Amino acid sequence: MMKDRDKFVVSKIKGLAEEISDDIGKGKPPKMHVPLRGLNNVKFDKQSNLLRLGNKTSARNFMNIAHSRKFMQTMLIASKCQELVSRGKTASIREMYYQLKHTIANTKENTFEDQSESDPLIVDLETSLEVLREELHLKADDKGTIIGNIVIEDSGDFIDCNKLGRSGLAIPSIVEQYKFHEVKAEYVLVIETAAMFDRLVEEKYHTKNNCIMVATKGQAARGIRRLISRINRELKLPVIVFTDGDPWGYYIYSVLKAGSMALAHESERLGTPKSSYVGMTMTDIETYGLEKVTEKLKDVDKKRISELLQYPWFQHKEWRHQLSLMAEKGLRIEQQALASKSLEFVAEEYLPEKINSGKLLP
Amino acid sequence: MMKDRDKFVVSKIKGLAEEISDDIGKGKPPKMHVPLRGLNNVKFDKQSNLLRLGNKTSARNFMNIAHSRKFMQTMLIASKCQELVSRGKTASIREMYYQLKHTIANTKENTFEDQSESDPLIVDLETSLEVLREELHLKADDKGTIIGNIVIEDSGDFIDCNKLGRSGLAIPSIVEQYKFHEVKAEYVLVIETAAMFDRLVEEKYHTKNNCIMVATKGQAARGIRRLISRINRELKLPVIVFTDGDPWGYYIYSVLKAGSMALAHESERLGTPKSSYVGMTMTDIETYGLEKVTEKLKDVDKKRISELLQYPWFQHKEWRHQLSLMAEKGLRIEQQALASKSLEFVAEEYLPEKINSGKLLP
Repeated sequence: MMKDRDKFVVSKIKGLAEEISDDIGKGKPPKMHVPLRGLNNVKFDKQSNLLRLGNKTSARNFMNIAHSRKFMQTMLIASKCQELVSRGKTASIREMYYQLKHTIANTKENTFEDQSESDPLIVDLETSLEVLREELHLKADDKGTIIGNIVIEDSGDFIDCNKLGRSGLAIPSIVEQYKFHEVKAEYVLVIETAAMFDRLVEEKYHTKNNCIMVATKGQAARGIRRLISRINRELKLPVIVFTDGDPWGYYIYSVLKAGSMALAHESERLGTPKSSYVGMTMTDIETYGLEKVTEKLKDVDKKRISELLQYPWFQHKEWRHQLSLMAEKGLRIEQQALASKSLEFVAEEYLPEKINSGKLLP
Repeated sequence: MMKDRDKFVVSKIKGLAEEISDDIGKGKPPKMHVPLRGLNNVKFDKQSNLLRLGNKTSARNFMNIAHSRKFMQTMLIASKCQELVSRGKTASIREMYYQLKHTIANTKENTFEDQSESDPLIVDLETSLEVLREELHLKADDKGTIIGNIVIEDSGDFIDCNKLGRSGLAIPSIVEQYKFHEVKAEYVLVIETAAMFDRLVEEKYHTKNNCIMVATKGQAARGIRRLISRINRELKLPVIVFTDGDPWGYYIYSVLKAGSMALAHESERLGTPKSSYVGMTMTDIETYGLEKVTEKLKDVDKKRISELLQYPWFQHKEWRHQLSLMAEKGLRIEQQALASKSLEFVAEEYLPEKINSGKLLP
């Protein structure tokens, strides 16, 4: 039996198909409208604190020889997605490519030559239909771990994430099926590196501070972003982010918070605009006497700082201050550098002190 | 209270320290012996099917000016490891670096300038003491997921890996503390890609075939290798490996089975010499009609095939046959290419057919 949202997604796909078959019925050249995803159609919405796609679209016309191959491919993908959703199946975007690749009867023409042909069309379909990729039952790679005081229902199992030893639950690429139960935690701490997550698990930080901890292990995968967004919106839990003190860490935070340019059409459902940032900040270096354990910025880091300073969503004066300080000092500071004080320092002093006193960046 | 193995490790570190203080007491220049790890001291042991370190060692002499900095650093690391083990703490190798980095009193000399100085000395210490890095309470990054019919006890929690929905347990970097209970599974299926793991979870392969599934997500991290090795040795469960059909997938298998050259000193505890290989093989292409969904080899793939053909542990005639066939066809085949038959094909036909008929490579 299909869920309501699945039925809605199928009806969206059918709607697209009907428009096209109507065109054909009327003898008109069939076409579809695809929102533009270039930078000039991405805007930062200050009100909601999210990156959003603008209203510009382009037409894909079957009778235009430059469009017809892509048109055919988009239809194949739409049809396969409808099948996936109807059957309650999911597929990776690579499986999608393999499922659709074949030689068209009586020709030497392949439907697809390479996955680089199908991937952008999947995004076209998401944006045209205004549904998440995961709702089309398509998956990106998964990554990340969650642990702490929350019971998650997944496919009939009730998983107490507080009873998973030091291991934690692997976050899958699709978390739409998750239902949340018995959430006693008070906030979510999102951690950039696997090693810092391990440190905090070892120090029982999540138990002592009654929080949920999520490791992103670098840039957060879509499953992680969706999970954090859902916990924040549905359970009203504050989200606090803890990354390395460098432009890459700050960008990881901004993607979690406001969304990314490449996926601006999904910010609404992947972003967590109400999240805040605990560290590492440039001011931490002096406050905690970490001068000896900083690292020199490389040219690529400096270039990245200039880029971040241009982004509309980094214009908050606190963030401009941190980024300018970083460029000025020519230094970055890692989460794990706190180990120079003691292994326990991050869990017993740094985090509780900053979080309890509300010393967070917006 | 320290566990027996922890006590043993501490006594090993103390033994090293005592030798050195004896030297000093006798007015002799203190020195230590470190096994050589170059290729000319790595051998493939056909009997055990494992890569092993030979007997060649080099002396590190404190009074030799070329050695004294490294000697001092090795002692710092040994001392910190003793502290970690005694206190029941673990640390990442990056935390170890940060913990030890400081300016030596009354000098401008830092103990360490960069993690590239401490990492190789950690391996020196492992090999000299003949203990696993994890037993020194040091961690590499974690990766990988496990799901299926096994109950794992981790830090007081009993985790039923069959009740984790479609998510699975995140495999930590240290699995020494794991205890196994109620293992009803009949074998372990190790899977290279996250997407194929997801596919098999969706098809309930582990339930229908009563097996444990482990996703390595690329080259297997140490925690995964140790976990698989422990399950194989302690529970006597067969291990079957399923990777892409290319030199990189075959190498992932060989590292799981025989160990790696860089970690030859740990093959005994990380390797699983009794594992076998289900696919993707080059002969699968013809058997299952997958010609249309192969990929052309790149130059770097071809070079890698020639390298594998040189390795003593790829001299089995079945493996020589597969590698030669690959070079000859100039093609590779991915796990996910099986989706071209149908999404269910891998779970309902390919794997059960090959595993039940014993069509496995050694």
